[in-house]
Amino acid sequence: MGLDEKDISLKALDAIKKCKKIYAEFYTNKGSKDELEKIIAKDILILGREKVESDFLIRESRKINVALLVSGDVLSATTHIELFLEAKKEGIEIELIHGPSIFTAVAKTGLQLYKFGRVTTLMKEDGYTPDSPYDVIRKNISVGLHSLVLLNTDMDVPTGLGILKELESKKKENIITGKMKIVACSELGREDSKMKYESLNNALSDNDFKHKIPACIIIPGDLNFKEEEMLELWSA
Amino acid sequence: MGLDEKDISLKALDAIKKCKKIYAEFYTNKGSKDELEKIIAKDILILGREKVESDFLIRESRKINVALLVSGDVLSATTHIELFLEAKKEGIEIELIHGPSIFTAVAKTGLQLYKFGRVTTLMKEDGYTPDSPYDVIRKNISVGLHSLVLLNTDMDVPTGLGILKELESKKKENIITGKMKIVACSELGREDSKMKYESLNNALSDNDFKHKIPACIIIPGDLNFKEEEMLELWSA
Repeated sequence: MGLDEKDISLKALDAIKKCKKIYAEFYTNKGSKDELEKIIAKDILILGREKVESDFLIRESRKINVALLVSGDVLSATTHIELFLEAKKEGIEIELIHGPSIFTAVAKTGLQLYKFGRVTTLMKEDGYTPDSPYDVIRKNISVGLHSLVLLNTDMDVPTGLGILKELESKKKENIITGKMKIVACSELGREDSKMKYESLNNALSDNDFKHKIPACIIIPGDLNFKEEEMLELWSA
Repeated sequence: MGLDEKDISLKALDAIKKCKKIYAEFYTNKGSKDELEKIIAKDILILGREKVESDFLIRESRKINVALLVSGDVLSATTHIELFLEAKKEGIEIELIHGPSIFTAVAKTGLQLYKFGRVTTLMKEDGYTPDSPYDVIRKNISVGLHSLVLLNTDMDVPTGLGILKELESKKKENIITGKMKIVACSELGREDSKMKYESLNNALSDNDFKHKIPACIIIPGDLNFKEEEMLELWSA
């Protein structure tokens, strides 16, 4: 599905036409089911994460052609890789159709994709926050690389930055500071998308990003002249 | 334009309808102009790299609405970031429309995107080969991360692997060996795409990849169980 309802490709539309049932997972995207149904001219059945992780779709696809619409590019999430593997094992014919992804949409910042290090995702579940994003950012910065920090689906930029600051208070390696300049993004690839290059503290209280999802944060590494010039476009 | 003519999105088609002239750059893709013209129902004018890098499109867009179709996602290449910046500076209204990219299409290997390190591109110009890809691969391997090695547009998998071996003979750090298993890919996201998980030496003489472009090579880092299982799907 990409990042926006109209990101759907002609290839995806062709495939949808051949399918009897169209399932969709809106787990990581705020796409509108109604708008998408209008576009594809078919009914969409929304599946929860549990159903996607079960053998439901495999069983369905033994009887009829089914489509599963997912956010971003098709195999960016582990769950969908596992579904693909399962289908292959079961001898079910499966076609992958690619779509636009946040992984490359962040090039709009002006930061070159070749200069990004490992990607990380901030999560908070039942009050627990894994440390690993902090370590990924530290390693990327230490070698001058940019960090794309994805946020859990229900997390806006201020919430994500709050978690980064929490991790800093815990680990105390002076990686995340209030003065550091970051790129805050919300709804990238959509009409209402916002992008700002500002200090972490500013972004933390920036009302423009409150409750705006999906969101991500980019922590720049070493900048070349062109990257600096581009970032100035988003200077708050 | 994504990876295949039919990757074009409804959003792109809408924008194309509003444009008087449609330019395209096929620098990094083997897309067919004729097929694309049929799909968009408009004539396409192909631009060479020099023209894209000049102020030609800026001048055109002062008079009429123009579109530039590029391979993969819209700002993956530095040239297009510079064009975007130039347009912004000149006060020209510009819309970015995202498309599928090789950066995420490689998830078909089964290797998780979160476990990729920095991306690198192999080049050979006038007999000269930059060393940097070797260093990028070494660093990625040293921290267990996967490496996506993009190849220059005219380069197939065997040629790319030959260059990696050349770099090894020069640098002698025992990073690239004939026995190491790599993932060879050609025409990813297209109907004739090929993907094989095999030893570097096998891939080097694999006729299936000869003259097949665009191509890329993936050098796996540490593998988890699921990744191993997926890679077996492509075992030659």
